[in-house]
Amino acid sequence: MTYCVAIKLNAGLVFLSDSRTNAGLDNISTFRKMIVYEKPGDRFMVLLSAGNLSISQSIREILQIEQIKNHEGGEAITIWNATSMFDAARVLGSAIRRVHDRDAAALKNADVDFNVSLVFGGQVKGEGMRLFQVYSAGNFIEATSDTPYFQIGESKYGKPVLDRVITPETPLAEAAKCALVSMDSTMKSNLSVGMPLDLVVYDVNALQSDKLVCIDSNNPYYTMMHNNWGQKLREVFDSIEDPVWDDAHTDIPLKMPATRHATLRKIRTPDEKLI
Amino acid sequence: MTYCVAIKLNAGLVFLSDSRTNAGLDNISTFRKMIVYEKPGDRFMVLLSAGNLSISQSIREILQIEQIKNHEGGEAITIWNATSMFDAARVLGSAIRRVHDRDAAALKNADVDFNVSLVFGGQVKGEGMRLFQVYSAGNFIEATSDTPYFQIGESKYGKPVLDRVITPETPLAEAAKCALVSMDSTMKSNLSVGMPLDLVVYDVNALQSDKLVCIDSNNPYYTMMHNNWGQKLREVFDSIEDPVWDDAHTDIPLKMPATRHATLRKIRTPDEKLI
Repeated sequence: MTYCVAIKLNAGLVFLSDSRTNAGLDNISTFRKMIVYEKPGDRFMVLLSAGNLSISQSIREILQIEQIKNHEGGEAITIWNATSMFDAARVLGSAIRRVHDRDAAALKNADVDFNVSLVFGGQVKGEGMRLFQVYSAGNFIEATSDTPYFQIGESKYGKPVLDRVITPETPLAEAAKCALVSMDSTMKSNLSVGMPLDLVVYDVNALQSDKLVCIDSNNPYYTMMHNNWGQKLREVFDSIEDPVWDDAHTDIPLKMPATRHATLRKIRTPDEKLI
Repeated sequence: MTYCVAIKLNAGLVFLSDSRTNAGLDNISTFRKMIVYEKPGDRFMVLLSAGNLSISQSIREILQIEQIKNHEGGEAITIWNATSMFDAARVLGSAIRRVHDRDAAALKNADVDFNVSLVFGGQVKGEGMRLFQVYSAGNFIEATSDTPYFQIGESKYGKPVLDRVITPETPLAEAAKCALVSMDSTMKSNLSVGMPLDLVVYDVNALQSDKLVCIDSNNPYYTMMHNNWGQKLREVFDSIEDPVWDDAHTDIPLKMPATRHATLRKIRTPDEKLI
């Protein structure tokens, strides 16, 4: 499996991906799921991929050279000359459809779904940053201030912390930390998501980034975050009072005698049903 | 959807379930997913259910009267006379198969999977506590000290905290708190899991329990836990240093200049691929 997350903030963009792939349970490998497209001063784009690796690799290969027709005339549109991220996302959609045309029927014959999901975001000179989630049909949706992040792959374990922390106003470094905590929770509960991690942070209007890092298990920041988060989470957990079943001993009784038997279906014997 | 969790500890058992069901997105209702079978001094059993509601309701109805053959002769085995939880789980498996025989073909015609998953645990006089996860084919697995809990339904959001806290030695009240935190994270990220909650705590060898509670949004303990957990989690998050991209300013650099360009695939122009 895979876990990737991308966050769009007022201050910039954050992209994080793991690198574990598995075909079945016993064929586990390391493949990077992030690719950065950069023409400094002109455009900066990042693609994250999850799903069938043969499909996502083909899409990445084709995306380099994919063209779509320019309805306003002139040169065909590629990711390297598109004047908007929206057009670049359309090129990506077209690349997906090209791979679909080539492989989907054969995959279906082999009972394999055409399963790929992508996150594609960045900035092209002349417009603001944009972030898209692109589906296997080549269609896509865009992140908004209401939903400033997208996840693909094993997204559920790491979602609660994103929901608690991320707003468009979140500073970039804090959002990067949040993405790493989200990844840490995912790796804690799912062996199929694993190191090394790729992290990219992009500052709004920079049109390039040097904030690219590959994080392995020796990375001092990640190790510090992992240990502190685990330990302090435990301290917070311990600091919250345990529930008690006798309201004589506490101001915050868990027990609610008036309703509990009426609302919980308890059956004492086969003949005595309390519903 | 549904979220249910059951935990087996040295000190006893904890069961927690939500009560939201949805058929599609716009048909959301409240149905309890927990049922307690108790003959005080003789047996105490709890059944949690997820999946297709028509199937789980039928199973619960049939389970009251289901019998399996006693190969040692004598009276047929029911959940009310089984001499082990293992036999009681077999009766439950038999009830599932009976519903399957009755409904599965018609469901398949309507393109509906025979989808149900159950957690069944408790104690029968004369043996220790046992906890089972029961599948839609009527087969089941048992919790061990290595894996002391089972989840059904929307299990991923709430798994990290269980993995961080629960061991067989965890005290009962702490495990109940952990189950509630796990539920809280799930409800935070998934609208299809909702109040009221049913919580049962069982003390080992008691063969009955009065620790049954229905928790709604007015429950003072839950409200305290929810607010404290959310606020303190945020404080812990804020207390962890943000990553910085210049190792002059910190002892815990995120940046690892030596490897980052080598390991992250960055493409500057179509012609200049760094792989």
